Amino acid sequence: MGGTIYEQGLGQHSANFVSLTPLSFIRRTADVYPQRIAVIQGSRQITWGESYLRCTRLASALRGRGVGSGDTVAVIASNCVEMFEAHFGVAMAGAVLNAINTRLDAPAIRFMLEHGEAKVFMVDKEFGALAREVVADMATAPLVVSIDDADYDDGELFGELSYDDLLDEASADAEHAWRMPEDEWQAIALNYTSGTTGDPKGVVFHHRGAYLNAISNGITWNMSMHPTYLWTLPMFHCNGWCFPWTLAIYAGTSVCLRHVRAEPIFDAIREHRVSHFCGAPIVLNTLLSAPAEVQQGIEQQVNVMTAGAAPPAAVIEGMERLGFDVTHVYGLTETYGPVTLCAWQGEQWDELPVEERAVIKAKQGVRAQMLEGLMVADPDTLQPVPMDGQTMGEVFMRGNNVMKGYLKNAKSTDACFEGGWFHSGDLAVWHPDGYIQIKDRSKDIIISGGENISSIEVEDVLYRHPDVLEAAVVARSDEKWGETPCAFVEPRPGRELTDAAVISYCRDNMAHFKAPKHVVFGPLPKTSTGKIQKFKLRKIAENIK
Amino acid sequence: MGGTIYEQGLGQHSANFVSLTPLSFIRRTADVYPQRIAVIQGSRQITWGESYLRCTRLASALRGRGVGSGDTVAVIASNCVEMFEAHFGVAMAGAVLNAINTRLDAPAIRFMLEHGEAKVFMVDKEFGALAREVVADMATAPLVVSIDDADYDDGELFGELSYDDLLDEASADAEHAWRMPEDEWQAIALNYTSGTTGDPKGVVFHHRGAYLNAISNGITWNMSMHPTYLWTLPMFHCNGWCFPWTLAIYAGTSVCLRHVRAEPIFDAIREHRVSHFCGAPIVLNTLLSAPAEVQQGIEQQVNVMTAGAAPPAAVIEGMERLGFDVTHVYGLTETYGPVTLCAWQGEQWDELPVEERAVIKAKQGVRAQMLEGLMVADPDTLQPVPMDGQTMGEVFMRGNNVMKGYLKNAKSTDACFEGGWFHSGDLAVWHPDGYIQIKDRSKDIIISGGENISSIEVEDVLYRHPDVLEAAVVARSDEKWGETPCAFVEPRPGRELTDAAVISYCRDNMAHFKAPKHVVFGPLPKTSTGKIQKFKLRKIAENIK
Repeated sequence: MGGTIYEQGLGQHSANFVSLTPLSFIRRTADVYPQRIAVIQGSRQITWGESYLRCTRLASALRGRGVGSGDTVAVIASNCVEMFEAHFGVAMAGAVLNAINTRLDAPAIRFMLEHGEAKVFMVDKEFGALAREVVADMATAPLVVSIDDADYDDGELFGELSYDDLLDEASADAEHAWRMPEDEWQAIALNYTSGTTGDPKGVVFHHRGAYLNAISNGITWNMSMHPTYLWTLPMFHCNGWCFPWTLAIYAGTSVCLRHVRAEPIFDAIREHRVSHFCGAPIVLNTLLSAPAEVQQGIEQQVNVMTAGAAPPAAVIEGMERLGFDVTHVYGLTETYGPVTLCAWQGEQWDELPVEERAVIKAKQGVRAQMLEGLMVADPDTLQPVPMDGQTMGEVFMRGNNVMKGYLKNAKSTDACFEGGWFHSGDLAVWHPDGYIQIKDRSKDIIISGGENISSIEVEDVLYRHPDVLEAAVVARSDEKWGETPCAFVEPRPGRELTDAAVISYCRDNMAHFKAPKHVVFGPLPKTSTGKIQKFKLRKIAENIK
Repeated sequence: MGGTIYEQGLGQHSANFVSLTPLSFIRRTADVYPQRIAVIQGSRQITWGESYLRCTRLASALRGRGVGSGDTVAVIASNCVEMFEAHFGVAMAGAVLNAINTRLDAPAIRFMLEHGEAKVFMVDKEFGALAREVVADMATAPLVVSIDDADYDDGELFGELSYDDLLDEASADAEHAWRMPEDEWQAIALNYTSGTTGDPKGVVFHHRGAYLNAISNGITWNMSMHPTYLWTLPMFHCNGWCFPWTLAIYAGTSVCLRHVRAEPIFDAIREHRVSHFCGAPIVLNTLLSAPAEVQQGIEQQVNVMTAGAAPPAAVIEGMERLGFDVTHVYGLTETYGPVTLCAWQGEQWDELPVEERAVIKAKQGVRAQMLEGLMVADPDTLQPVPMDGQTMGEVFMRGNNVMKGYLKNAKSTDACFEGGWFHSGDLAVWHPDGYIQIKDRSKDIIISGGENISSIEVEDVLYRHPDVLEAAVVARSDEKWGETPCAFVEPRPGRELTDAAVISYCRDNMAHFKAPKHVVFGPLPKTSTGKIQKFKLRKIAENIK
């Protein structure tokens, strides 16, 4: 190729090549819309112009503290101004943002700080006591920076200096001193996956992927300029699915909430005329369960993006009945968040009844524009399964929005990329129209009498029962069948359910062999990201007499 | 940087890296929306699924004919199915598309075929006779492929074989045989600029820039999925500003028109419920001049993107009064089409009267999201001019949507990239809000008595005169003043104007020294892309007694 006329004297230089990075987006938005509000947090409002300057000062101060290329800056914080700014300012210093799940315990966080070699640890006052415990036992503690919140009375400021003190260390030329990444493959973020067993794995994002998936989010959602985006999704959850960077493209406004509860969510949606928010199905379920008087009075169109656990069709249906427009997406931390969507086929689907539309929307769908490849295939041979809606296989992805790999973990990195595709660990079927539907995590499938039973399929039926608030199904060892489904159900407040009623409802609504043989009632244990902890349920199931 | 923990064992491979190319978009849209209409051309309708297959077959057939990496495939065609497909199929063969301006004469086209070393020349029947003349004198003629159009009765099929014959040469595995570019810096298109003097220069686009500017178009226009796009803009004009590729992102429908005239445009807008189209100000002027009965009856929102010559505010105002939403963008062939836009500042501007909004919209504005740098600066020192709305400077750009360079023209390439910025050759002022406004091409400025007079400013006043259809202003040598403005005016049909009336109107509406001293009436000579040929007007102006 080097010999063609198109390769002669037509190389890259500063006029025609720049590394792809979301930092370009915030610089451009600060230039063009300096007065627009970037972040609202309680009584605070920060414009894009101010926020950009603060980000450049954060970068300058970090550099001054010796933090640079390839260094890690960890943050534990609620969705707040500082957390938003860290998504840009840390990268402007050439460093890597490690946003830490606020629901983890001290040993898990300590593992991450040590494994990621964090040089700085920024701590929201709500998590001050936790951070103190984390740092106490560390041989080499990072520089701890406290994040205050005038609207939050609880918590404990913990750190050698405050975030504002740190910004004050910036040099006078901070605005112009920061540099773009020299290479778009350079790391921008580190996110530890919430493994249910073993040590967490550190997923590494690069600038190129962050740039592209930020764009993909906007296209997926048909986003126009200046969305008002409510942060119900934690920013520590794979960088808020890249949405801090998406909002920089669209000069949007972030509305931050410290705690995700139905009433403040509905209040914020009304007060700020929120146009978009993301949430796991459990968040949508919370909204659906709110009293009607809390739900009413929304005048604008609100768009909801949901992902995480496969959303029960009943939850999608409920949201649509409430007037929200639901976009169902799917992805993993390893794919920068959402990379598939249930792309709507308007002409064919618009006229269907809401229940049927909800069943369609519960599919994970097709690859979004920036994902290059998606397939459901045999995990050993990588041969695609037939598109018959029946044959189960593993979901595989490839593209620029697949991670660099796991930090300092060559074994897991090599294993997950075997054969040149990313192995998601999720099991799905491939429908004749090319839409995928997740049936289970590899380890969650129930094999009963030689038949595969998708725990998600059983859960979907349970969620349709009017008295069920939440449900989960796991395998229980069985002498005769090998395994049988065991259901865990939390009834709606004030409702009563019997195991006989639940089992009979399932038998009425699906193949008999798929119905649970046992039912346990009570609240469901969850991981810090809201996923139900099935490994705990499995233990309980095994101990049922 | 190579030493940090983030660079160890975290390299690129097929699971996490793919070249950026618009070919990804068509493959994805053919997968997800195979039944949606990609192109409508008269009685023909081609779906995305069909079009994609035809593109892969074009690629396969070209490969079979020995066309591959770095080879040029030239096309001269109206906006039609085959022209659209060439934007994908040629690249799928690894080759480079050279879309040729249909308004050029045979020697100019012959120069391009020879300079670009075209191996294949695809010829729409409307241009068969022209192509025959082009090829007649060539020492080594390319393979000529004729493009038919059942709805077009005139013209002459000229070629060794037809486009459909060529597709029939594709191998059976064409759909899976094409390959993505190995390097996103690989050339995808060659576009000759319509220089008014000297040989045309061949602007080379790469896959990365085409991918990114296609995205930029969609963001600039707040595009949602499934736009219906009317092709009034020629696809040969810097690849239709990258819109064939944008439409592949959004699974849109292209509506093709062989000839750009008011009546068929309005008919198409109504019949196909067109949502978007692009056009130079002259096209908008044509629409505005149509009788009211031709204009009426449009029910949907129609979005117009305009660029090219600076649009007179009166034209923008007229379009908005007609109910069209106008987005004003600016760019050059060297920047893949539009890279700036007059980004709307809603709160501040929405409530202004339509005339004031039109004046604002006539500014070229700010950089779009994918352009990295934009400045108005001194052409010698590259020092930015003050943002005072007064000081004139040259417009400079940098970013991934700036061309690779000029083909086989190191001198022009080096000159235009001097100092690490692309030199646009356009003169502008920079307003205090950061918006740029083009005042002239470098060579079009009039210097009268030591004062700069922007020919565009004078033209803008002329266009506001109710009896003026088109106007252009150039410098005329003057013993006393050095230069004075000379106006060329085409009155609206049926209207009469005198030079005294024109001059007096100008003096009433701008500084007296800027008013033309001479006025010439008659139709204005234009380049093939619709730009007024000022070099011809200058000759006429010099000869006025």
